[in-house]
Parts: sequence; structure tokens; C-alpha cells
Amino acid sequence: MKKFFLTILFCFRVLLPAASQDMDSAYIKMIYNKALREQQSYGWLEELCLNIGHRLSGSPQAERAVKWADSLMRSLKFNVTKQECMVPFWSRGPKEQAWIVSRDNKIEVPILALGGSVATPPEGIKAKIAEVKSFDELDALGKTGQVRGKIVFFNKVMDPTYINTFEAYGEAVRYRWAGAMRAAQYGAAGVVVRSMTTAIDDFPHTGSMGYNDTVQKIPACAISTRAAETLSKFRVGNPDIEFHFVMQPKSGPDVKSFNVVGEVKGSEKPDEVIVVGGHLDSWDVGHGAHDNGAGCVQAMEAVHLLKLLGIPLKRTIRVVMFMNEENGGRGGARHAELAKNNKKEKVIAAIESDAGGHAPRGFGFKGDPVKTEKAMRYKKYFTPYLADLWGPGYGGADINHLEDQGTLLIGFRPDSQRYFDYHHSTNDTFDKVHPRELALGSASIAALIYLLSEYGVE
Amino acid sequence: MKKFFLTILFCFRVLLPAASQDMDSAYIKMIYNKALREQQSYGWLEELCLNIGHRLSGSPQAERAVKWADSLMRSLKFNVTKQECMVPFWSRGPKEQAWIVSRDNKIEVPILALGGSVATPPEGIKAKIAEVKSFDELDALGKTGQVRGKIVFFNKVMDPTYINTFEAYGEAVRYRWAGAMRAAQYGAAGVVVRSMTTAIDDFPHTGSMGYNDTVQKIPACAISTRAAETLSKFRVGNPDIEFHFVMQPKSGPDVKSFNVVGEVKGSEKPDEVIVVGGHLDSWDVGHGAHDNGAGCVQAMEAVHLLKLLGIPLKRTIRVVMFMNEENGGRGGARHAELAKNNKKEKVIAAIESDAGGHAPRGFGFKGDPVKTEKAMRYKKYFTPYLADLWGPGYGGADINHLEDQGTLLIGFRPDSQRYFDYHHSTNDTFDKVHPRELALGSASIAALIYLLSEYGVE
Repeated sequence: MKKFFLTILFCFRVLLPAASQDMDSAYIKMIYNKALREQQSYGWLEELCLNIGHRLSGSPQAERAVKWADSLMRSLKFNVTKQECMVPFWSRGPKEQAWIVSRDNKIEVPILALGGSVATPPEGIKAKIAEVKSFDELDALGKTGQVRGKIVFFNKVMDPTYINTFEAYGEAVRYRWAGAMRAAQYGAAGVVVRSMTTAIDDFPHTGSMGYNDTVQKIPACAISTRAAETLSKFRVGNPDIEFHFVMQPKSGPDVKSFNVVGEVKGSEKPDEVIVVGGHLDSWDVGHGAHDNGAGCVQAMEAVHLLKLLGIPLKRTIRVVMFMNEENGGRGGARHAELAKNNKKEKVIAAIESDAGGHAPRGFGFKGDPVKTEKAMRYKKYFTPYLADLWGPGYGGADINHLEDQGTLLIGFRPDSQRYFDYHHSTNDTFDKVHPRELALGSASIAALIYLLSEYGVE
Repeated sequence: MKKFFLTILFCFRVLLPAASQDMDSAYIKMIYNKALREQQSYGWLEELCLNIGHRLSGSPQAERAVKWADSLMRSLKFNVTKQECMVPFWSRGPKEQAWIVSRDNKIEVPILALGGSVATPPEGIKAKIAEVKSFDELDALGKTGQVRGKIVFFNKVMDPTYINTFEAYGEAVRYRWAGAMRAAQYGAAGVVVRSMTTAIDDFPHTGSMGYNDTVQKIPACAISTRAAETLSKFRVGNPDIEFHFVMQPKSGPDVKSFNVVGEVKGSEKPDEVIVVGGHLDSWDVGHGAHDNGAGCVQAMEAVHLLKLLGIPLKRTIRVVMFMNEENGGRGGARHAELAKNNKKEKVIAAIESDAGGHAPRGFGFKGDPVKTEKAMRYKKYFTPYLADLWGPGYGGADINHLEDQGTLLIGFRPDSQRYFDYHHSTNDTFDKVHPRELALGSASIAALIYLLSEYGVE
């Protein structure tokens, strides 16, 4: 019945070129129906989350995830290879502890070391607090000597009025990334950063941070938003309270790891490649379910759906499970380097799903405006699936390494309202992903792959 | 500062009528910002869900909910009145029990009596099963005597391929509503209906059912989707298995209850009324959080936001907490009757939020096409808030009683992917509602009320 239907569709297109649009719509309907009726991504995500769990690159779990992805894509009959890359090693060590300490009181509060942070001394760091909401405020305090020897508390609230919560994250995340190096310039002893989330709750959210070589490396942690509010309120009546935190993470030499790549050759233009991916690594807490197990299983399911349905693919589709997005981006860089060195082919477009597994809203495009405009013509096909929020966008952290190769970079855009409740926290677990929402994402990505494969980007 | 801003906006409009659109956009931005920064609806919903809980009309909890809404709307300085109506009394009685019984085995499965069902005998009903997926299949079996004395199992799967899950519900719900009366025509002993949900899980979903006077009233229950699949698979190898269920619900004489109404008089056209509401009653399981606590608190918050911001309202806004939507619709009917009898005013538009508290997608319109088209011109204001899925729609079960009064009926459309996971089940609890999603709904409704109040519908 399926073959009969495809034959009819095919004859239809050959005899009536004007019917192409109807045929594209029909294919896309088939894709969504198949994804909603026979979803496999949710089961794959369950395996990844419950059998392997979180998987920071460089960890044994990340290596298990590489084997899992390799084996799964082989079972899907993709042509599977691995791309070696060296990744940083960082390990959290024993559970962190922190307290707000006043003359009469000692309140324990939840923290997580930021990824890449140095350790405190074994007894921790205990010091008075300099609370700031911006680098300007830090500079003002720092220049008058009010930061030296203190713990700087970056209490920047993620702005709740952005409808797209990623915009609020973009504004706030600089304090996580650069807080320690900026505070160290003024002789701070340590840094505590309000967690990057729109929720007020008890989950601290980790994430990457940077140091530079000109100032001392000081320890930095994230504190839950509820504890951040407590700390800030406490300080009003008690400016002399102290913050005390203990954390013992360790760094080590780089470790060998891999991107896992599964390819399906194009029938007419095999040298034009469409990349679709997510990142296999996660932070070392929770399950890495939304970030980014969801994106991984959607990328694999998207291509599997096209194969299952027998939809013709003119161009080569390359599924990439990127390694080390969270703390280095080495996998994305390595993938781009190999693509650049391969003169026989060109990555014409790359799609990344790294914004969670929630219901699709659309896609964001980064790259050549002419190519973007051409791609934008397909937007209409996604209106029936409520996924037509298309426009200029960010691409994705892994695929953006391809930018100088003229690749059209495309970020999948799911609904963002709940995403930062989970992101980089112990709360990012399998049960937070909804099967229908996940399947709709797989289908949206599959539909876009089909269109790009059929018509290219020129 | 707020007053200053409003004065500037107002001068702007008077001096430059062409600037109205910018002013409307500015008001709408203020509404969303306020809702996202200072949401109150989530706290109200917590009170309703955790202090009162579920509240089937006619129950003591429903009466407590009436008092709660009355008191809350008074605290918001709405002009509060109550509209008396008589509602049916039905009580579930002790927890239902059901088993799949084969020669060697007895498996307990989760069921809920459908609302309004008669009881089984105290020892229950135990009989062989006639499984059907449609009324056509029922008729085919019934006409050949294969239904008599059996329990009819309506195993209609909600079609997962509808992107809007309400469409799948619309197709499947007829078996819940009319299954018992249709099966009784053929002498069935009872009815078990597959739960109306897109999830495969262990929660049975109740809901209203009907009888007619020409056939015997037979007991009807809903079975969880997972148990429905088990039952169906079991039957393949064991056609003689039996279903055994025990349930002891009771009906009684009608009970007095109320719609609770909170009004804010319009400054220029007080006789033109815009109704906004949800239904205060729920099914008698879970918290009635999405269905329809969410809609109630959004309706109240929408008007509260407009008042807080000092946004001028030319027309009268009437917040209605409807009673008895779930099992009779008496509150909606009573409200429409009173509106019709009041010759001094006209309900020009009515907005109902009764599709859950998820992230807004848009609004659906039912009524005069010219009015609908006029309202559709406001759609553009909602694009920045990702709530511009506007088009012909259903209205709402409570407000649709106003249809013959020329009222423009408007249903709030949140994302529907998760809704039927919760609807009418013990799973519809407070923790399933997300604060940002709820607040975005309040804001969307407030923005639409403002536009309708400012410009009317003619």
C-alpha cells in the first residue's frame, strides 16, 4: 500500500511538474503521521537517559553513549563512522556544600560547581559577600576596593518578559561564563552565580565558565534561584553575613572521544551534504534529557522516518551526534575541520536540535540571506503543524563551526517556556520530555531535511 | 511612573489618531510584561487546587469554590454577584473495581465510572466482552445477537495524527457519551469505554455520558488506555475472557448552586458587555487544574491586569465563573438566559478559556463572519507573543449558550499536545500547570479583552 502510494505520487510529479507542491505536502503529511503513530525516539531517549544517564564528555558514560549511538545507527542501516577528537577532562568530585552564615544562623543552600571551575581548599572558602546584578556594578565595587577577599554574588535575574526564554538566557549567561575572571581582577576569593533559569526553585543549574591567564583562577558555583533570593533578602538586614562553600572538582589531561556519524547517501547529488544533529554529551547531572538527548534522538528519528517511508533523498544526509558541546565544542570544531578538508563534498545545510524536546514552533536560519530566503519559501508547509515560526536565528553551537564554509545553519525552535526549568540541572530528566512533543519535533526536522534534499539551497 | 506613561500614551492617541496602533501595541506589551513579572494566577490556582481540590457541581467542594471565587473577586474590587442555578447531583461512591477474568487469571485494571452512570449490582457485573471500535461495528454485532448479555468494550483509539488533539477527542468522545444508550439497544449488560487520551498510561479518564428513556440504563465506565490495550490483546487468544466491574455511584435530586460573576463597568459603553470566563466545577478526581481551574484564574487575572495597569475600558467586562459545565451545562444556560432577559445590555463578545493552561497559540472564533473578520484584524498584535493562531473555532461549552444572541464567541487556544494526558483524570493536578504558560494565557486574554473593549465588534 505504501509502495503503491509512492508510485502514484511519483507518476503524478513526473507528468505534472506543477503538482510538486501537492506532492511535497503529501510527503510531509506522511512524515508527521508516521512519527505520531510509530514514534521510536521516545524509547531511544529512555535508553539513553535511564541506562546511561548523564554523560559529560570525557566521562565513562560519554564513552558508553558513543557506543550506544554507534550501535543504534547501525541498526537503522545508516553508514556509521566516528570522528575522533580530544576533549577536556573535568570531574565534579564529591557533592558540593554551601551555607549562608550569620552570627546566629547557618542555612545550607543548594549549589553546583560551574563546569571547569577550580576547587576550593578542602575546608572551603568562607567570606563576606559582594552582591551585584551586572558587570558595571562589579566594576563600581571593585574600583573602590569592596570586592577584595569577598565572594562575588552575581544575582542577575533572567528577564521573565522575553517570550523566547533563550533571549533572557543570552543576557544572563555572561555572568556564569565570565563572572569568575571578572571578579578575580578585583581580588575576589570566589564567585556564586544565580542559576540561569526562569523558575524559582531549589535546583542549581551548572554550565560552562571560562578563566583567562592574566588573573587568578577562583572557584565558581551556581546557586538555586530560591536560595539566591534568600541570600539577597538576608543581606538587607545583615550586610555582614558570609557565604561558605566547599567543592572539590578536578581537571585532568584531555581524553580521546568521538562524534558519531551516520550517513545516508544521496541518489542524485551525493556530494551535497545536509547535516542534522544534536550533541551526545551532557552536563554531569540529571539525565541530559532535554539537553540534549532529545535533539540526538530527533536527528536520528528524522532520517529514519525518511528511510522507513521510502521518501527519495537526492542529497546525502549526515546525522551527527556531536561530542563536547557543553564544555569545549571540540566535536563541532572537529566535524567542521573534516568537512572543510574533504574537497569532494560540501555541507550545504546543517540543522541542529539543541533547544529541548518541547512542541515545535519553527526554525531559525543563519547564513547567506539568499539561501535563507529560498529556504523560507518552505515555511508554508509547516503551518498545518504549528511549526511555522521561521526567521533569522542562531543556528546551533555545534553546526556554527561550519559558518565559514557557506553552510546554511538552521536551528530547530521548540517552545521555550519550560526549557530553562531543566537545562543543566538534576531536573533535566527523562520524565520531563513529552512523547508527542518529541515526535512532532522529529517530524518537523524530517520534513525540512526532505525539502532541502529535494531542492537544495541555491 | 505608570500614570505618567499612560498619560503620555493617551495624549499621543488624542493628538495623533494614526498612532492608535502603536498605542495598542504598547498597552499589549505592558499587559504581557506585567503578567510575566507579577503573575497572581498561579497562586490562585494553587489555592483552588490544594485547599479545595476537585469540585463536581452539586458537591460541598463546588460550594466552597463558589465562596472562594466570590471572595477573591471581591478582593480584586470587581462588582460581584451570583447567578443561581439548579445542578444535577451525582456521587461516585466507593472506589470502583474491575478485573479481566480468564480461566487461569484475574487481572485488576483501573477504571472510573462515567459521570452520570447508574451503579452495578453490589457484586458487580461479570460478562463476556463484545469489543468494537465504532458504532457500525456495534450495529453489526448487535443485529446478529452478539451483544446481548455482554459488556460492550468501545476501544476507539484517539487518532494521534491530529496536530490539534481536540479534533481527535471530538471523534472519539461520542463513544463515551452515547456508548451506553447505543449498546443497551442490543441488550448489553454494561459498557467499558477506552479513556479519551492520547497517552498510553494507567489513568482512567471519566466524563459525561447520556441515557435516553427508550432503553435500559446500563452502567458505563472508562478504562485506562494501557488496560484497554491489555484487554484487547488478551481477547485475541482468549475470546471467552470476561470483564467484571463493580461501581456504586448515586444520583439524587438537583442541588442549588451558582455562577459567580465579577463585573467592571465600561466608561463609555457600559451596556455593551464582554464576557470572559472559565468553569468553576470540575470532575470529581484530581484537582481540576487544567480543566478548568486554569481557565478560571486566567479569566480573573486578565481583568485584574487591565485594572492594575489602569488601561481604560470603554465597555463592561464581566468575568463569569460558570457552574456545571462538566455534567449538565446548567450554569452556561442560566447565564445566557439572564443575559437575554436583560434588555438594557448586550453581550457583544464572550471569551472562554477551557482548553487547559498550556502556552497560548491563539483564539478560535464562532459567530457572525463579519464580526469574526473584524476581530481577526487584531491577530497581528499577537504575533510577538506566539499567539497568532487565529481562525474559525468552537467558542466554549459555557459561552456557546449565547449563540442565538449574536454574541461573538471566542475560545482561547493553548497548545494541545499534553492536555488529554490530564483531562478528567486523577492526573489533572496543580503541578501539571506551568506558571509561565499560565501567565502568558492570562496576558493573551487580557490583550484581546482590551481590543474588544476599545473597538467593539461591529
